[in-house]
Parts: sequence; structure tokens; C-alpha cells
Amino acid sequence: MPHVYETDGAAIYRQSFATIRAEADLARFDALEEPVAVRMIHAAGLVELARDIHFSPGFVETARAALEDGAPILCDTRMVSEGVTRKRLPAENAVICTLGDERVPALAQELNTTRSAAALEMWRPRLKGAVVAIGNAPTALFHLLNMLEDPACPRPAAIIGCPVGFVGAVESKDALWTDRPAPCCIVRGRLGGSAITVAAVNAIASAAE
Amino acid sequence: MPHVYETDGAAIYRQSFATIRAEADLARFDALEEPVAVRMIHAAGLVELARDIHFSPGFVETARAALEDGAPILCDTRMVSEGVTRKRLPAENAVICTLGDERVPALAQELNTTRSAAALEMWRPRLKGAVVAIGNAPTALFHLLNMLEDPACPRPAAIIGCPVGFVGAVESKDALWTDRPAPCCIVRGRLGGSAITVAAVNAIASAAE
Repeated sequence: MPHVYETDGAAIYRQSFATIRAEADLARFDALEEPVAVRMIHAAGLVELARDIHFSPGFVETARAALEDGAPILCDTRMVSEGVTRKRLPAENAVICTLGDERVPALAQELNTTRSAAALEMWRPRLKGAVVAIGNAPTALFHLLNMLEDPACPRPAAIIGCPVGFVGAVESKDALWTDRPAPCCIVRGRLGGSAITVAAVNAIASAAE
Repeated sequence: MPHVYETDGAAIYRQSFATIRAEADLARFDALEEPVAVRMIHAAGLVELARDIHFSPGFVETARAALEDGAPILCDTRMVSEGVTRKRLPAENAVICTLGDERVPALAQELNTTRSAAALEMWRPRLKGAVVAIGNAPTALFHLLNMLEDPACPRPAAIIGCPVGFVGAVESKDALWTDRPAPCCIVRGRLGGSAITVAAVNAIASAAE
């Protein structure tokens, strides 16, 4: 017997978001933040993620305005850049990942860092006013924070900092929250990752659910 | 002051895996399964994932042998196909995602299902002996199970079934575990996603940590 299941994509989203809103503690979030948090929880499959999501004041409106103004989205990995839903973008925004740039391996060696971190050096010409989406590598987020300690470095409009894992993820996100070189969103702790990061971008890009 | 952090990628992996092995309950897994589970936990940033990971007997060796034999990897989303580390693949295996195929939207309408599910129809010519990696869409996993109810449908060698979320994820993975049309790996419950799925593929592709 064939399996019978919901095949209407819009209905699947509606039911998913309704379940999240019934189960997750979303009281901390304002009206702009709440749909972003819901979509991040949706990507994680974990209502307890609500506890770990933090937005700095004005983050959602700043990031959304930047995208509406045509800002590029700078991503640390191809999993993030591929996940962004192009039709949700308000201005056919460029979605950029420089990790595959052929200059990156040599640069990583020269800078004595990871390729994920070195790839951010290629962002400089696009960084001013950009929306940054870091969903994988703590070293990339640390490198960005160090780049931004130089007042001459171009400033992004907003930073989504959601690297995942067991070495540096906790620390890099705490550092972003403390340094706060731009309005930002983090998932505090070990959780994070490309899917959650993509969900944040997609929710900011369009208020449509 | 610039942030100081671990910048040696190999050291980051070693420390991460050591933390996971210290904290996670991995006693259920055999020697082939354990490194796959560890890498899946690494991608999730969550040691409690150990509880939800299930391998059917012979899954890892069957999937690895298929890859060594040149099997393609069939992925439900570009986030999965982009995440697979090409240099870990033993036979320059093809990594295929058909979701962007131009025939998919019309086919989804014709079959009255999601694009994620309809895209699997494009897999048929490559399905025999393939390694399937479903990391996002429950509808894709359900559709695959329904395709495989037809004895004339080509059989994959192994199935990684890790869709995530609140509608159909739990049910589609339970259905895979029960039907078991090929050796399989699931993450029981709502958790799952492209990063965990990619981690399973990367761990199966090479025993190297």
C-alpha cells in the first residue's frame, strides 16, 4: 500500500509553523523577530532552539532594509549560499560564497588560518553594507571580528552568526554578541549550522510565510 | 585585541571528535557505525543526537562498498549535494541533485505532489545501486518508498533518510525503518537535516577522520 502523506507544500509550511507556535516559547521576540525565530526553529526541527536564539536591537529591520536596498549576502559555505531561496530576495541580491576561490588555499597558508577564515578576505570589496551569513565555521566568525577591529575595514549592515559545533562555536558567537560590530543574530551555544542560518536569511528576505 | 582561536583545521576536528566521544553515549554502535555517528553528531552540535541515530544491519559496509564501486550519490537538495566533500569520495562518484531540473515543476503538478518528491522521478536511470541521501524533505522520502513498492523500480544500495521537521519527518523515517527497501540509516524523530545527512555521506565515503 502506498504511503499517504501531505503533498501540499504550502499546507506543510502552515502546519509546521502552527506546531512551532503552539510548542515553542516565543514570548521574548518582538513582531519582526518572531517569524525569523520560527523559521530558524523549523529548520532545526527543535522547538527548544527558541531559548538559544538572540537578536540584537534593530537586527531584523536593519538586515531587511539592507536586502531591500540591494545588499549582497556573504556566506561562509556553499551549503548556506545554495540554501537561500532566490525568489524570496527583494532585489535579486547577489549571494556570494568565496570559499571555492582559487586564491584561498594559498592565502590560508600565508595567514596561518583555515580556508574558511581566509575566504573572508575575498569579501572586502563587497563587505560594506552587506548581510553576512556565517553558518558553519567558528574560525570564519572569529576572522570577521578580527577584520572589523580595523576601523578601515568596510562595515557590514548586519551579521548572522550561527556556526555550529564543539570547538570555537560557543566562543565565537559570544564574541560577536559582545563586540557587536553590527546588528546581529546568534544561536548561543553549540547549536547552529547552515540550515538554521539559511532559514534566518530566508525569513529576513521576505515577511511572507 | 584580536581574538585568538584554534586555526588548525585538523586540530579542530580532533578536539571536536574527542569531545563527542567523551560526552556522547555511543555504546550501541559497532566499529563501523561509531565514526559515522560521531560525524553526524559533530554536524548537529548535539551529543544527544546519538540516541536518535539508527543504522540497519550492514548499512555502513554496504553503502561504503557501493561508493567504492562507483555508485552515484542521489541527494534531495542542493544543500546536501554541495556539502559532500569531493576529495573524500573513493571513486570520483557522481553527486546528483535533480531538484533544479526544469521538468520538475510540471511533473510535481502532474503527480500532485511537492517538487522535492517529483524530483525523485528523475533519479530512476541512476537509482540502481546508488546511495540515496535525503536530508530535507519528508515528501521525498515518502515518494521514494512508494516508488520502491513497485518491484520493477531499480533498487538503491543504501538509503540515508534524515529529513527534518514538524510535518512528516517522524512518519517518513519510521516508514523507511519499517519498509526497509535497502540498508538504511535514520535519525528518529524531528531532528535531521542536510548537515547531518552530509556528515553521514562524508563519513561513509572515507574511514579517515
